[in-house]
Amino acid sequence: MKAQVLHKYNPKMDEKVWVTEQEMPDPKLEKSSDVIVKIGAAGVCRTDLHIIEGVWEHIQDPKGDLLPMVMGHENAGWVEEVGKDVVGFKKGDPVILHPIISGTDGTCLSCRRGLDQHAEEGAFPGLNIKEGGYAELLKTSVRNLIKLPTILAPKDVAPFSDAGLTAYRVVKKATRHLLPGQTCVIIGAGGLGHIAIQCLKAMCAANIIIVEKSAQALKHAMDLGGDEGVLIDGNEVERVLELTKGKGGEAVIDFVGEKGSTAMGIKMTAGSGYYYIVGYGEEIRVLAVDVIISEKTIVGNLVGTWSELYELMELANKGLVTLSMQEYKLGDANKALHDLNEGKVKGRAVLVP
Amino acid sequence: MKAQVLHKYNPKMDEKVWVTEQEMPDPKLEKSSDVIVKIGAAGVCRTDLHIIEGVWEHIQDPKGDLLPMVMGHENAGWVEEVGKDVVGFKKGDPVILHPIISGTDGTCLSCRRGLDQHAEEGAFPGLNIKEGGYAELLKTSVRNLIKLPTILAPKDVAPFSDAGLTAYRVVKKATRHLLPGQTCVIIGAGGLGHIAIQCLKAMCAANIIIVEKSAQALKHAMDLGGDEGVLIDGNEVERVLELTKGKGGEAVIDFVGEKGSTAMGIKMTAGSGYYYIVGYGEEIRVLAVDVIISEKTIVGNLVGTWSELYELMELANKGLVTLSMQEYKLGDANKALHDLNEGKVKGRAVLVP
Amino acid sequence: MKAQVLHKYNPKMDEKVWVTEQEMPDPKLEKSSDVIVKIGAAGVCRTDLHIIEGVWEHIQDPKGDLLPMVMGHENAGWVEEVGKDVVGFKKGDPVILHPIISGTDGTCLSCRRGLDQHAEEGAFPGLNIKEGGYAELLKTSVRNLIKLPTILAPKDVAPFSDAGLTAYRVVKKATRHLLPGQTCVIIGAGGLGHIAIQCLKAMCAANIIIVEKSAQALKHAMDLGGDEGVLIDGNEVERVLELTKGKGGEAVIDFVGEKGSTAMGIKMTAGSGYYYIVGYGEEIRVLAVDVIISEKTIVGNLVGTWSELYELMELANKGLVTLSMQEYKLGDANKALHDLNEGKVKGRAVLVP
Amino acid sequence: MKAQVLHKYNPKMDEKVWVTEQEMPDPKLEKSSDVIVKIGAAGVCRTDLHIIEGVWEHIQDPKGDLLPMVMGHENAGWVEEVGKDVVGFKKGDPVILHPIISGTDGTCLSCRRGLDQHAEEGAFPGLNIKEGGYAELLKTSVRNLIKLPTILAPKDVAPFSDAGLTAYRVVKKATRHLLPGQTCVIIGAGGLGHIAIQCLKAMCAANIIIVEKSAQALKHAMDLGGDEGVLIDGNEVERVLELTKGKGGEAVIDFVGEKGSTAMGIKMTAGSGYYYIVGYGEEIRVLAVDVIISEKTIVGNLVGTWSELYELMELANKGLVTLSMQEYKLGDANKALHDLNEGKVKGRAVLVP
Repeated sequence: MKAQVLHKYNPKMDEKVWVTEQEMPDPKLEKSSDVIVKIGAAGVCRTDLHIIEGVWEHIQDPKGDLLPMVMGHENAGWVEEVGKDVVGFKKGDPVILHPIISGTDGTCLSCRRGLDQHAEEGAFPGLNIKEGGYAELLKTSVRNLIKLPTILAPKDVAPFSDAGLTAYRVVKKATRHLLPGQTCVIIGAGGLGHIAIQCLKAMCAANIIIVEKSAQALKHAMDLGGDEGVLIDGNEVERVLELTKGKGGEAVIDFVGEKGSTAMGIKMTAGSGYYYIVGYGEEIRVLAVDVIISEKTIVGNLVGTWSELYELMELANKGLVTLSMQEYKLGDANKALHDLNEGKVKGRAVLVP
Repeated sequence: MKAQVLHKYNPKMDEKVWVTEQEMPDPKLEKSSDVIVKIGAAGVCRTDLHIIEGVWEHIQDPKGDLLPMVMGHENAGWVEEVGKDVVGFKKGDPVILHPIISGTDGTCLSCRRGLDQHAEEGAFPGLNIKEGGYAELLKTSVRNLIKLPTILAPKDVAPFSDAGLTAYRVVKKATRHLLPGQTCVIIGAGGLGHIAIQCLKAMCAANIIIVEKSAQALKHAMDLGGDEGVLIDGNEVERVLELTKGKGGEAVIDFVGEKGSTAMGIKMTAGSGYYYIVGYGEEIRVLAVDVIISEKTIVGNLVGTWSELYELMELANKGLVTLSMQEYKLGDANKALHDLNEGKVKGRAVLVP
Repeated sequence: MKAQVLHKYNPKMDEKVWVTEQEMPDPKLEKSSDVIVKIGAAGVCRTDLHIIEGVWEHIQDPKGDLLPMVMGHENAGWVEEVGKDVVGFKKGDPVILHPIISGTDGTCLSCRRGLDQHAEEGAFPGLNIKEGGYAELLKTSVRNLIKLPTILAPKDVAPFSDAGLTAYRVVKKATRHLLPGQTCVIIGAGGLGHIAIQCLKAMCAANIIIVEKSAQALKHAMDLGGDEGVLIDGNEVERVLELTKGKGGEAVIDFVGEKGSTAMGIKMTAGSGYYYIVGYGEEIRVLAVDVIISEKTIVGNLVGTWSELYELMELANKGLVTLSMQEYKLGDANKALHDLNEGKVKGRAVLVP
Repeated sequence: MKAQVLHKYNPKMDEKVWVTEQEMPDPKLEKSSDVIVKIGAAGVCRTDLHIIEGVWEHIQDPKGDLLPMVMGHENAGWVEEVGKDVVGFKKGDPVILHPIISGTDGTCLSCRRGLDQHAEEGAFPGLNIKEGGYAELLKTSVRNLIKLPTILAPKDVAPFSDAGLTAYRVVKKATRHLLPGQTCVIIGAGGLGHIAIQCLKAMCAANIIIVEKSAQALKHAMDLGGDEGVLIDGNEVERVLELTKGKGGEAVIDFVGEKGSTAMGIKMTAGSGYYYIVGYGEEIRVLAVDVIISEKTIVGNLVGTWSELYELMELANKGLVTLSMQEYKLGDANKALHDLNEGKVKGRAVLVP
């Protein structure tokens, strides 16, 4: 099969070739629960750029033996071949892949409680497993498959498997407590923020305030359903407090997590409210007394569970959440990565066969 | 002041005069937390017909000393006068009235936990208190007032205080567990059902199946946001199961509660799902083993809390829930009651000054 | 291997031989996730008597091809042999077996949400699977295994896998809402009731009222931690209301479910409270209006999840829940069954090698 | 009446007289919901020392007109006189006082949702109200009273009204998610920690690890029900991880909140776990990425609700939580304060008439 392979971290960023197309042996079934998927679309994620830059090297590749690696952790496609004990899937079924492979085939306590993203020794294809979705075929487990509902094709959904799932999970947490008359503040109207706004509109009646530093991104996000838009201009905290009669948002979801957004987000959080942190890059710093007097809660958020990806597919199948996507052929992976790096991708880039 | 007064139960139903307009002394402040409200609208509720018919006599009037009574338990208006310890309200403020007067001024354990509808010795104006809202003025407590948000007038909201609140509370319970891909079945698309459908659409992304015996009512309800409509024709259970791939609804809300709807509703409920009973009139009968094997839950529902009425006002203020209303002058109370009794009211009847 | 086999339903109850000891082929690994367990103890359950009596025949054996069957659905032992994809278990590990085999190896939506007892096409060994635990060996799935904590041996725990798990799950639900000052009423102080009382004492501070028809059983149960005991003598509802200042129990757990206990239990339930039904045998009948006015909730309960069995083992390992047990040799299965049938078993009967 | 009055902040700490006993006019009923309480016991709290030291001056006394003030915010006693609209209380009833006076008589949204400690314009007697409990009489509101259960006297319970309530509320939050087999780490075994340990033992079956810097305090706390004790000696994080098989505590409750305890506490928190912060004095600092990868949650905690104080009284009435107390006569307030400052008080100091 053809695959796009990363051979070294931290290339010169003006090099044209970050990943190399090459012929590789087709994956083979090993465990009886294994499934080979023919990739229909592989999302090209900002994380992929960070992997290339070597930002994650010490975490994902502590032994230094991960490369060469086929990248791609946001995958969808069609079942190609199933292990002998697999039930419920057959060749040709369109599927999306939950991004985390359990180290225990789903038998650890986290998995048994439904928290798939906290599986013991869980690993991501194309991130800390050598084989990813920038390829024609990918081996995964039956436990990672979700059959696509009626009207969705693999290329419509691949980026949901990581970016979408992360946005959905955090929104779901917030909608479990948001009541009519309350406010959800979204910090950062990028890829995840866009999905989050749509999920929020579909799943609760709270007011939505979007906080964003780019006027253009803000305008676009408002079209998806924001009630109020606030440009980051130095007065954004005051503006959010003003819009909420001095209270702040009962939920604040921070997709940025750097350059001061955490302090800003916590200040925007109402008493008894929840600050959800998704993006990262800085240290959260807050006086203990400030968290206590107002009984604020700070919540970390990571990807999502298999069931949540299932739920997101149902939302998408109803047309309640859509992605704008730009397709590239698998052979054009380098172009997709460079376009993403240069801010030229509208919506989300996906590699298709 | 003028008021419409009930003097006897169970009149000949073809009598023209069920309630009598008469001049009564204006209400006086007694407790320091009392408030006199100038009625802007009083909902005319099916319960009022049942009161007239004497259905509730043994419950609401066990000592036989309740009549003469001014009816009207769904009230909104403007603050007219406040007791000496009242803070936060002044003459002219537009308000809606939570329908239950606490017997302990909100100091019992239920009230302290926010469950206003379960107040110790709680009572309803115009139902088990002699003074109701079919009048120019009504004395209530500051604890029953909610200031109307910006764009709502008393006549837009009066029926929310009982019918709307009941629908909102049960929907809120259901949306706390309904997930995308799951289904909510609404049995009965009448006054409460209409509000429930709008609340559901605003507050979750579940599929909505409306089950109704009148084809016309079903059609009208579908326009408010049903995903599927099922006519009660003897095959309604099979149809709901078919629409849900054999599972049933993870939430079923039964606004009928009689003529077999409870057995039907429980059968329509999915395993691990919730059957919410709102309407009443018959006995619920179900084999223990059927509830156990599927781990179904049966939930009773009564009006709602003060906070929930506040939340509903926020929904209404955003335009997410609306009532269709037919106005009658207070002096035409008998006509309103007769029209309601004869099925001639479109939407909800309200009495206005 | 030796096994005790049921060949026909509904024998003459005075026959000595209900199950027949015979030599059978050892079970063989089939799926890669299969595990062979050497049985260390198999609980003898009242359900086993009902199976013999044929009560369950139409449900468990609709095609009439289930017999001959090795009974035994409450099993614990030691790992004997593992399938090629099994991780985390090796020969000799002491284990308890969750009683329900998933029809999809844990990939259905219920399993993914952690609700193992609602697995699609789930089945019970020795109940609707021909192979049960009244034998020397049993084939199960790695997904059914829980490694025993430090101080527990298989013979200490086998009855926890069904009876204990059922009691634990329902108590866990109740303790999620029971607050200090509130009351839990336990109806039926038999096998499940005994475990429930111990779990309640360990997991919440609510008052415990035990309602039981046998004075001796009541006395014994009180020793385990009841705060009040109420004999079923015709005045039991009044007595519970009196003990709770007229309110009833915020949780009522009914382990009987027949002979009027459901009506009794619902009456003993406080407003806004929960009636949990575990035992069965009759129809639940209650006026819709009674459930509504008090906002009572009726909850069905079935066995429990794998995680809950794990949690129960932790409780047992801390010594917070114990079983009194009477051991019989596997070869004495008929004696154990007859003793149980005749009320001669103290605590729980288990078959040991 | 006699009262102990603070006339200036920040005295020389070796002065004998920090508060001055003086005759003051008896409090008078003003609002119809007011109640005069004859003080039976007033807790002497470390916060009182901080008030004297002037630590809180800028917060509690921004206008500089608070002094002279009668201190004392942990109060219990007997009803002496009630306002004309008060129901349910009469002279002589023994009561404990919730410490926060609502600025809206309980009509704000927080109060209506049961969150009394977040009342709009809420204030504490003896802290930001001039009249406190170091006196013979105190005026409060009927909304602050809880009638004592059968076996408790005011002097047994006064410190529960603030210190106890704070410990109870945070433990209650933790017990809502702690499961058997999970661990709760208590950092700081002082006044609040002692109560917390007892509440935990009564309300859940989790393992309790106590982390404390004083060997003697640790030993004493272990006697109350700790499963493991860890001395703060530089290896405390490693030790907690070791005791929890590398996971940490699913709940960590930090009663210290200074001198590095927040960083320590967050490290001791398990993935998907909760770090509850109660004590304060430093900045919480944690990398966003560390909170995210493990999905940890940081929760601020403040005193508690009226209902929670009611629940705590029920726990105390069952003998499940006790305080060790040292009594001083009201006239010996200075001695009590000095003893507390010098570490000479065993348990909790209370002033009695």
